Amino acid sequence: MKKLVRDIYSAYGFNDQQAQQVADTLIYTDMHGIASHGVQRMVMYDHFIQNGKVRVKSQPEIVTETDVSAVVDGHFGLGSLIGTYSMNVAIEKAKAHGVGIVATRNSGHYGIAGFYANMAADQGLIGLSSTNSRPAMLPTHALQAFVGTNPIAFAMPAKPHNFIYDAATTTVPQGKIEVYRKLEKDLPAFWVAKEGDEEINDHTDDVDLDALRDPYSHVGLTPLGGVEEATGSHKGFGLGMIVEVFSAILSQGNTSPEITPEDLQVGPSQSFIAIDPSIFGNPDAIIKKFSDYLQQIRELPARPGKTIYVHGDKEAIAYDDRSKNGIVVDDKTLAEVTGIADRLGVTYGDLTE
Amino acid sequence: MKKLVRDIYSAYGFNDQQAQQVADTLIYTDMHGIASHGVQRMVMYDHFIQNGKVRVKSQPEIVTETDVSAVVDGHFGLGSLIGTYSMNVAIEKAKAHGVGIVATRNSGHYGIAGFYANMAADQGLIGLSSTNSRPAMLPTHALQAFVGTNPIAFAMPAKPHNFIYDAATTTVPQGKIEVYRKLEKDLPAFWVAKEGDEEINDHTDDVDLDALRDPYSHVGLTPLGGVEEATGSHKGFGLGMIVEVFSAILSQGNTSPEITPEDLQVGPSQSFIAIDPSIFGNPDAIIKKFSDYLQQIRELPARPGKTIYVHGDKEAIAYDDRSKNGIVVDDKTLAEVTGIADRLGVTYGDLTE
Repeated sequence: MKKLVRDIYSAYGFNDQQAQQVADTLIYTDMHGIASHGVQRMVMYDHFIQNGKVRVKSQPEIVTETDVSAVVDGHFGLGSLIGTYSMNVAIEKAKAHGVGIVATRNSGHYGIAGFYANMAADQGLIGLSSTNSRPAMLPTHALQAFVGTNPIAFAMPAKPHNFIYDAATTTVPQGKIEVYRKLEKDLPAFWVAKEGDEEINDHTDDVDLDALRDPYSHVGLTPLGGVEEATGSHKGFGLGMIVEVFSAILSQGNTSPEITPEDLQVGPSQSFIAIDPSIFGNPDAIIKKFSDYLQQIRELPARPGKTIYVHGDKEAIAYDDRSKNGIVVDDKTLAEVTGIADRLGVTYGDLTE
Repeated sequence: MKKLVRDIYSAYGFNDQQAQQVADTLIYTDMHGIASHGVQRMVMYDHFIQNGKVRVKSQPEIVTETDVSAVVDGHFGLGSLIGTYSMNVAIEKAKAHGVGIVATRNSGHYGIAGFYANMAADQGLIGLSSTNSRPAMLPTHALQAFVGTNPIAFAMPAKPHNFIYDAATTTVPQGKIEVYRKLEKDLPAFWVAKEGDEEINDHTDDVDLDALRDPYSHVGLTPLGGVEEATGSHKGFGLGMIVEVFSAILSQGNTSPEITPEDLQVGPSQSFIAIDPSIFGNPDAIIKKFSDYLQQIRELPARPGKTIYVHGDKEAIAYDDRSKNGIVVDDKTLAEVTGIADRLGVTYGDLTE
């Protein structure tokens, strides 16, 4: 599968290293059990490449930098390539000077934020990454979506595997709504709200759920914390705005309300931070203290029938499973990917092996 | 009032500059409308000073540093003095090298995290601060409180006033529960949970609400996002752990479960970060872009009868009000403060002027 992805991206016109990087990112995502953002996304990227929203020949460029910071202009290349480039800039600065903070503008959809944070953790560093998106979140008390789903990812080395936090600052991302509709399941409360504080729970409410994609519709995703200040709505809303600062404000790129998916001249903004723990003391002692702390949490008394996971545990379990059993790609996705390959003249063997 | 606070802290044995700093911090808090953490806290600090938990003659000390980082040992001095010292270290490093990240151990209760973040914003920088605390939050699916209320504060210069986010990673902090009990109001759902996913809403449930202060009681504050993963419980839980990393793990200080208020040898851990926006571009342009973005949010269509605030707006309104009308200190707090003054032989005039 990885070879097929690489060959497709080569056929688009990306160079070998770029095609390999894209394949690494997508397969990493599927291997860690996050199928929604893995090869399933290839059809969306294919659409972007065909309509010129993603420019195959663009190269990301550092427009300003210091020892500990940079602003990168992605020039509307492929999001995951711009993200990998930007995180590598942050990692190099952290290795040389302890900290690297990169703000990136004119990027593209970059997949899961946790992938970039984890790039730093895999090299012994603390990593953070965030991206904005088109408007999706209703600010507390507002009737119009204005802030993106704006995930925050944080990763840090730990035993037996890295700690990886990766979560939208809305209660759930858009994709989760779509999965529930496909499965014909009603939505839990607190996910989607419309005018008059009304929550939308009925999966057959097509009028409202389709309106989720229209920022002027008075329907939107709730911030983490729901609709009311009593449940912490203003906290998720505030965290979403902080993501805008590190991505769009510092890079002077597009904020969420400036992102209109139909406009090919507009891309999202992202942030990438790496911090070397050794600037605070012995990194082995720091990582051991953290690993022990996480293990204490796993061993707390749990609610009946429940397991306490810390962030990264579920992904590690999925990775072990996929390493043994391979990744499962649903028929629709497989047909989409082979359809792209056939159109581009890319050959492939038996993918069910 | 400020003079009285200063004189009391001088009488404890703090030097003039320290006494002034404590008065500045407490009065700043009351001026911004956060009465729970202002002079109302003096009786708690008085108790700590009397029983030796706060050591009046201690000085915070840098134990390791680089151009962009430091670990500070507070040596169990007064939390707000250690916090001010640590944030000033971060600010100096940010002014010289763009970024300053300070992790502080063996500190004390430092009041509101937003005060320290705002110290940076008042000097044109982005500021962040966090503190851990004794266990208060039930990790998702766990029956034992293990993570503190662990607030995250973020401040950034903006017009017409600084943006200041300051929020516990639990749905509400402990103090809010106490206020609701005093007012004999039932608690909203999602604030407190116990064994079996049960929420505690009844303000007369003294057995459970008193048990909140016992980490082994199977009663605890919910993470931001509530009890269930469907409402985002694991997100607030994860953010609380990230606060532990920047405060306790990097400083090799006490994590929340290691903080036992009765043990005078144990203090909380804190983090202080300053970032100079000018390392990313023209700071005036960055601050203008941010201010315009915030103003657009204030002007969104709002739910009937509601006003959309961005973080820092309510505090600015309170500050204007207190500047005109003075701060209101309730009778019980006033009696506590004058009681401390009388015991220490500190004189004061008519405080109702």
